[in-house]
Amino acid sequence: MKKAVILVSGGIDSSTVMAIARSEGFDLYALSFDYGQRHRYELESAGRVSRFFHASGHLVLRIDLGVIGGSALTSDIIVPEGRTPDAMPQDIPVTYVPARNTIFLSFALAWAEVLKAYDIFIGVNALDYSGYPDCRPEYIKAFQNMADLATREGVEGRRIIIRAPLINMKKSEIIRKGIQLGADYSLTHSCYNPSPDGIACGRCDSCILRKEGFREAGIEDPALYA
Amino acid sequence: MKKAVILVSGGIDSSTVMAIARSEGFDLYALSFDYGQRHRYELESAGRVSRFFHASGHLVLRIDLGVIGGSALTSDIIVPEGRTPDAMPQDIPVTYVPARNTIFLSFALAWAEVLKAYDIFIGVNALDYSGYPDCRPEYIKAFQNMADLATREGVEGRRIIIRAPLINMKKSEIIRKGIQLGADYSLTHSCYNPSPDGIACGRCDSCILRKEGFREAGIEDPALYA
Repeated sequence: MKKAVILVSGGIDSSTVMAIARSEGFDLYALSFDYGQRHRYELESAGRVSRFFHASGHLVLRIDLGVIGGSALTSDIIVPEGRTPDAMPQDIPVTYVPARNTIFLSFALAWAEVLKAYDIFIGVNALDYSGYPDCRPEYIKAFQNMADLATREGVEGRRIIIRAPLINMKKSEIIRKGIQLGADYSLTHSCYNPSPDGIACGRCDSCILRKEGFREAGIEDPALYA
Repeated sequence: MKKAVILVSGGIDSSTVMAIARSEGFDLYALSFDYGQRHRYELESAGRVSRFFHASGHLVLRIDLGVIGGSALTSDIIVPEGRTPDAMPQDIPVTYVPARNTIFLSFALAWAEVLKAYDIFIGVNALDYSGYPDCRPEYIKAFQNMADLATREGVEGRRIIIRAPLINMKKSEIIRKGIQLGADYSLTHSCYNPSPDGIACGRCDSCILRKEGFREAGIEDPALYA
């Protein structure tokens, strides 16, 4: 059975990517990061999603991005609330974490090489998060070119492929795809700013994009909102 | 004063790179990794080298590559000893750490972006370590292309440049260059397999390349060997 490394944050997108990889018959190895993020509930969701899809392994790596800083998700910068999708800025939001996907994909590459997995799945999305430079197709292509030269496997002619199946999908399309493939979104967590007991705020950009996606898909959002 | 992030392992190469960056007038920010390596003495050397060059900061990030494994430097694979430079294999050695430079450069990119440093120095060398895929010029070039697309700075037209000034130099040339620029190699540590009190074995590939480099440069090696 061919193996795949799946980057799992515990949100809608990575849960859908798990469903896609499973539907393609992969043996799933989930990779998550405890990176000092403010919304730690996502790690519990990542564990629930990984168990739901019977992942053969779920590795949670601790990396301290907090000491590097530079993002509302890892430091005390205030997370914006109450913006409609149209009102979200087109420039790079304060929730951008410097080089985050590059760091995540680098660890995925290392693990894939050790596991002899030749597919890495990442749930990046260029439409809903157009402000994040490392969610764009041209970025993923450049990471692939670099990865082909970075590893023993690449040198020996076995490419490790970076797969971003959601990159050009709208949130509502992602949700429909996931439901069709058996994803259970009640296990997921999206909020940037949850209450201490893990209830979503309903007002941050991530909650608003999620709610809008479910509304547009005509599917009920199983999340609890404050 | 323009800032630079310098990847510092505490060996000959990164110490020389610190000397080069200082000679170019950079304000130095040293970055090291506690990655579960067997030769932990290198972190103390990295600290000594950073203080010697009056770095404005020295960040030691803990990342657990040991749980990923796949290398003699992070797991219980035996480090080879007693090989002459000619007898070292041309294929990838067991001391190769999967995707290590990709992971290190990714964190350097994140920190550079937060610091607003537009130069990252790395002491990779394609000649003495020809077996490591992520020490080759074509790898560094591909990482640069990816980095240009990965960051806020890149999107806004300010490139963060990856500089590998030693990439085509022989070890003896690196040592001569460092001495000329005031590096103090008595502070450095190279051994893959030191004794519990930090004495170099003199027999691993890294010790042998170091001793050969000093011999060829006609300079006395200040390291203590068992």
